[in-house]
Formats: sequence, structure tokens, C-alpha cells
Amino acid sequence: MIVTLLTDFGIQDTFSGILKGVIKTIAPHAELIDLTHQVPAQDIAAGAFALSTAYRYFPPGTIHLVVVDPGVGSDRHPVAAHIGDMIYVCPDNGLLTYVLPKNRLHEAVILDNTQYHLPDVSNTFHGRDIFAPVAAHLANGVPLRSLGTPIYQLLRLPVTYPEVQKNIITGHIIAFDVYGNAYTDITKDLLSTWSAQDLQISIGDLKISSLAMSYSDVPIGSPLALFGSSGHLEIAIRNGNAGAQLGLQHGAVVWIADRKENGFPV
Amino acid sequence: MIVTLLTDFGIQDTFSGILKGVIKTIAPHAELIDLTHQVPAQDIAAGAFALSTAYRYFPPGTIHLVVVDPGVGSDRHPVAAHIGDMIYVCPDNGLLTYVLPKNRLHEAVILDNTQYHLPDVSNTFHGRDIFAPVAAHLANGVPLRSLGTPIYQLLRLPVTYPEVQKNIITGHIIAFDVYGNAYTDITKDLLSTWSAQDLQISIGDLKISSLAMSYSDVPIGSPLALFGSSGHLEIAIRNGNAGAQLGLQHGAVVWIADRKENGFPV
Amino acid sequence: MIVTLLTDFGIQDTFSGILKGVIKTIAPHAELIDLTHQVPAQDIAAGAFALSTAYRYFPPGTIHLVVVDPGVGSDRHPVAAHIGDMIYVCPDNGLLTYVLPKNRLHEAVILDNTQYHLPDVSNTFHGRDIFAPVAAHLANGVPLRSLGTPIYQLLRLPVTYPEVQKNIITGHIIAFDVYGNAYTDITKDLLSTWSAQDLQISIGDLKISSLAMSYSDVPIGSPLALFGSSGHLEIAIRNGNAGAQLGLQHGAVVWIADRKENGFPV
Repeated sequence: MIVTLLTDFGIQDTFSGILKGVIKTIAPHAELIDLTHQVPAQDIAAGAFALSTAYRYFPPGTIHLVVVDPGVGSDRHPVAAHIGDMIYVCPDNGLLTYVLPKNRLHEAVILDNTQYHLPDVSNTFHGRDIFAPVAAHLANGVPLRSLGTPIYQLLRLPVTYPEVQKNIITGHIIAFDVYGNAYTDITKDLLSTWSAQDLQISIGDLKISSLAMSYSDVPIGSPLALFGSSGHLEIAIRNGNAGAQLGLQHGAVVWIADRKENGFPV
Repeated sequence: MIVTLLTDFGIQDTFSGILKGVIKTIAPHAELIDLTHQVPAQDIAAGAFALSTAYRYFPPGTIHLVVVDPGVGSDRHPVAAHIGDMIYVCPDNGLLTYVLPKNRLHEAVILDNTQYHLPDVSNTFHGRDIFAPVAAHLANGVPLRSLGTPIYQLLRLPVTYPEVQKNIITGHIIAFDVYGNAYTDITKDLLSTWSAQDLQISIGDLKISSLAMSYSDVPIGSPLALFGSSGHLEIAIRNGNAGAQLGLQHGAVVWIADRKENGFPV
Repeated sequence: MIVTLLTDFGIQDTFSGILKGVIKTIAPHAELIDLTHQVPAQDIAAGAFALSTAYRYFPPGTIHLVVVDPGVGSDRHPVAAHIGDMIYVCPDNGLLTYVLPKNRLHEAVILDNTQYHLPDVSNTFHGRDIFAPVAAHLANGVPLRSLGTPIYQLLRLPVTYPEVQKNIITGHIIAFDVYGNAYTDITKDLLSTWSAQDLQISIGDLKISSLAMSYSDVPIGSPLALFGSSGHLEIAIRNGNAGAQLGLQHGAVVWIADRKENGFPV
């Protein structure tokens, strides 16, 4: 059984290694795969987006252990949930914001059966004391419903949605990757009938006059817009860092328009 | 058999990958788990502390391969040791400083049987040429005593110890994690009979008037003191970086006092 | 079957985790080992050097998945190749520059059989859509020749070679590691008959008057030259960063001379 790990623990300390030790002690046959431990510290939205990019590429039955947990020790619930064909183990703080709308929530529980936790639960490291042992017991075949009390709704963060008007879509920057490419909430399906050649993308003062098919469509150093590997419209600079060089911020508005329909200069 | 890896090799180069290739070539069934490769370069004390936070969460029989080795090529001994219910493979330079006092040293050897090393041993990369192959042979079931000459004492670094007087404990900062939380040598058992409400913690000019149970006990940006997941007293700033913001240094003195007993202003 | 991963994806995002999910979905028994994901972005030469340091330490039959791919979406070919006793899956852009001269190219194919790719291939993430599934099918035993059209020559980058004159070797800096140690193209075999004591190494204004056997041969803070674990002559500063402190650049010339033969001051 595969258990993935997605946290904000960083890689300098041994926190992620400790999770793995706890899991392998309980579930010797679990296979552990890191998604990332470099979610910005305590940034639930960034963790939710990171999870949204990766979860679907794993085999059915994969257990995704997700720990970005600024509320550890407060009253947020630790939960496990069967959503789509995967299992998620995480604090109920919005980490599943992007997974929930696209997949059916079959079953979820609050992790209040302490039999499946470590004997001494700290107030500061539920990753080690609750989430990792629960993930391990799930990998061993313990049924979800044994782990605690059913819960029927999981927290979602408020998210921006693109606004689709007649041939103009207004979207927003929702994340950056490590190259500085900016991801928007505009997905490919929203403009599947439009022509890539007749589009204009605007962000602040920057105008981009067509959709690129790949980074190499434009000269080195030039900005481009393309639907990247995530299915989201990305603003990038070839071999550069669009976020830093263009001064882009989370939430910044991005317009995409059909120039012919809108009378834009072609 | 699990082999963990804890080094100062960083993650930019392929050094840790090379260790894994060497191990898997000799011991195809070994399972490899990274603790961290980001110990500050050649900082034996930091490596020893990192090991101390993680070793106990692994199953009995785990082989911990620990390579922070500023003396590579000099006369420090490469060793393997059976301590508690784990095996350690490392240079004898103090990396086991925190493991030894809490666990029984059953057996240790200097790794001078070259039959278990790579054929050509370099002067600069014993991780690859000695420690990794030895860890792999141990994972294959080679007995510890076959690996070299017995040794009966292993090097320990000088470490600070907290000084416990009548209701005042004087401790020291011994490490920082990646969030800037400062770890002290004051452990929870030293004040198990004290009341969390009546304590005062002092570090430089900063006074903290009670122990927190979790980070969320104080407002964002406020300093706090708590016994964290490691069992050590930590000085932290909620959602901040205590080390940087408070100018804390390794070895800085931390006092914890019972205010009623000491007549401190409550 | 071992599949190694060497990319420039960094570790902040989930890109490397996605590759692993794709591989494990197709080849559940594949064992995944990271070489590094921190190759400088789109730096094919650095990726080629990183691969050259690590590939030979893995068991025969290992599949090395190497994705540093600035030309993704352009006309560079995705390829798989059986070279020496390993398999390589990568873009044909020079990543095999250092592997090819030292190992026999048995067979290579352009990856144009889309049956072994993901159903929808993006223009921006062939690591996920082509290279990872191909590596997984190879791990499952699919023969190389099934994956596409044979190709008989693979791209090599222009590389510097050391120039060997009578007792003077002129070499070049070709890479740096994370410690700032500078690697040259001068390998140990070029001066196997010389005496370490009678050498002088020159780089810019710096003269080093003998070869060190290990970092600890010189005082902390002093420069040294030694044949390191890679077999390449390295310029280092003990406990320092030679690249930064000496202002060394890629391609900088390094001379090594036999002082007696050349009449150099001893």
C-alpha cells in the first residue's frame, strides 16, 4: 500500500523521517512516497493546491497523508476521509478544498479513537502522534469507520472562481511554482471552443497576444501564457521567473478575451 | 531491513543517491529512508541532535547510517555499534552523543575489515566507500563482530546539562529547527511536579509568564515557551522565527523558575 | 527493478512526486530512488555531470530517468537507451554526454510509440506524460525496441578536454558541488606516474604547491587541490566555499605541472 506524504515540515529537520519511522513500525509493508515537504510554513491554501496537482496520479487506494497544521493543539479536527478512489488523512482545515469538488466524499471520520494513535499524544506534533499512525493502520487494512466518529462535511477554504462572460473570462492567480510560473484559476475547459490565435491575455499592464503551446514558442526572456501540465492557464517567462519579474501577487486578476468578438486590436 | 540515512551532503548533488546505489547493489532488499541530508555542513553537534530526535521512532533492528564527517581521511575511526535495539554506522566523532546515555551499548567495532568496504576506498568519501557498504552488509545479516576490531568506548561531545537548584532550573539553547524554534536542554521530567501556571521562563530580557500547551495558546507573533514534540523546552514565536527575531544563539542561558517559591512577581 | 530520478524539478512542488505516482501506477514493483531534483533549472550540462557522478553505483539493469528538458515541446527527441549495463530514459539533448564515451551504446529508440505514454500528452510536462510511463513499462519488462523507432546516435554536448603536454596539464572547471568545491576535467589517470609532492597547481593567481590526500591535510580556511571521490581534480577550501571565495567560474583554466621537470620554484 502506498502512503504519500505532503507537509510543510521542510527537509532540514527529521520531522518527515520521524513520520516514516512511525508508519514503518506499524505497517512494515507500506511504501512511502514524498510529494513535497516544502509547502510554505502553515500555508493551508498552498498545501491544498499542491495536493490538487498530484493526488490523481497515484493508484486507487493510495493513502495521502497531508500535514499542514497551523491549528495543531486547537479544536480543529483530525480526520480521515475516503474521497474518490483515494484515502486522505489530515487536519480538517481546508487541505481538501480542491479535492472535494471533483470527487465523491464516500465516508469521513474524526480521528477520536485513541487506540490507533501513539500512546502519548503531544500538543504540537499530531503528524507523528495521530496522522502517521492512523495512515499506517489504514495501510494495514483497518477500516476507516473504526478510526473514529463519522463526520459528514469537511472544511473548504473560500476560493476564487473565474467569471465567464461573453467571450471574456476574468480569473485570478492562485499559486506559483518554484520557477516563478503563475497558475491561474482559469482551466482549459472554460475556453475549449475558442481559437488560440485570436486570444488576448492581460495581466496588469502586460498584454500577451496568443496562447503558446510550449515554453519554446517564444524567445528566451519573453512572457507567455499557456495551459500547462496542470490544466490551468499559466503566466510564465521563458527561462525566467514571471512571479518576481512581473511583480505578480496571489489573487491578481487575469483577463482572457476573444479579440475578434470584443473588437480588440488584433 | 530498514536503513535510514542522516548526512550533511545536502540535496543538490547526487551524494545521497550514490549511497543508496551502493547499498541497493549489495543489499537489494534494504529499504532506504532519509532522515535528513541537510545537517549544517560538518556540524557534528547538529547531526547528533538530529539523530537524537528521530532514532527511537524506527522499528527495532533498524540500521541508522549517519555521515557527518569533517575528519574523513584523518585518524577518526569508522565504527558500527549495537546500541539499545538499533544499529548505528558512522564515524566515531561524537554523532552518538545523545544516543549513548539513554541506551545500552551492547557491542561496537572499528570498521577495519576491508572485505566489507568497496574495493577502492577514497580519502574523501567514506560514506560511499565504507559506511554504505557496511550498512548494506549488516542489512544482509553479516554479524557486527565480523566487520572489524572491537572497541569499548565511543566518543561523546561535551554537552551542556541543565542545572537544577531549588525551584530554579538553568538550561541552555542546544539547537534550532527550521522554523527558528529554539530547543533547550531542559526536559519535561525535570519539572514534572511543578505547576505550569506558576512558572516564569527568562531568556535575556524576555520573560514568559507561563508554559503554553500548544502554539495556538498565544496570539500570532507572540513568544511562547512549551514542551514540544521532542520533550525539550522550546522557545518559539507563534507563526514567527524565534531564533532570528529574538537574536538567540547556541548556548544561550534559559531560566525556568517557580514564581511562588522564589517570590517572583506573579 | 530500480528506477532512479534525476531532474531539475526542485523539491518545492509536487513534480517529482507526480512522476513517482505515474510510475507506481504502471509498475507497482518498481523501487524509486532520487538522485537529485536540484539540478540548476534547465542546465543540461549540470544534469549530465550529476548523472556522470552517480550512474555507475547502481546495480546492472537500473533504469535512470533523467529529465532536464528546456526543449520540451520542441523537436528534440525523447529517447530510451541501453548503454553499458544500464537503461536511460531522457530527452536527447546531451544529458548522456559523459555516460556515452565510457560505455557501449547497445540500442536506443525514439519514444514515438504512444501506446506506452499517458493517454493525453501535454506540451510542457513530458516527464509525467512520456518519460515516467516509459520508465515504468521498462521496469515491467517491456523490451526497449517496442518503445519506438531505432536511433543510432545520441546528442553530446561540446565538452572541454584537458590538454596534456610534457609535464603540464591544462584543464578546466566543469562543475561545482554544493560545498563550493570546484571539479575540473583533469582525472587521476592523466598523471598517474607523477609524484604528488612535486606538483604545482595554478588557478588564476592561486598557487597550490602539492596535492592533498584529504581535506584535513590543510588548516581550516586554506585552499587545497585533491583528487576527490569522483576521480576528478578538485579545488577546495577546507571548511570553506572555494567557488565563492576564490571567484571561480565554469570553464576557468587550471594548470597542473611537475615543478622539477619545468624548473618551477620548489
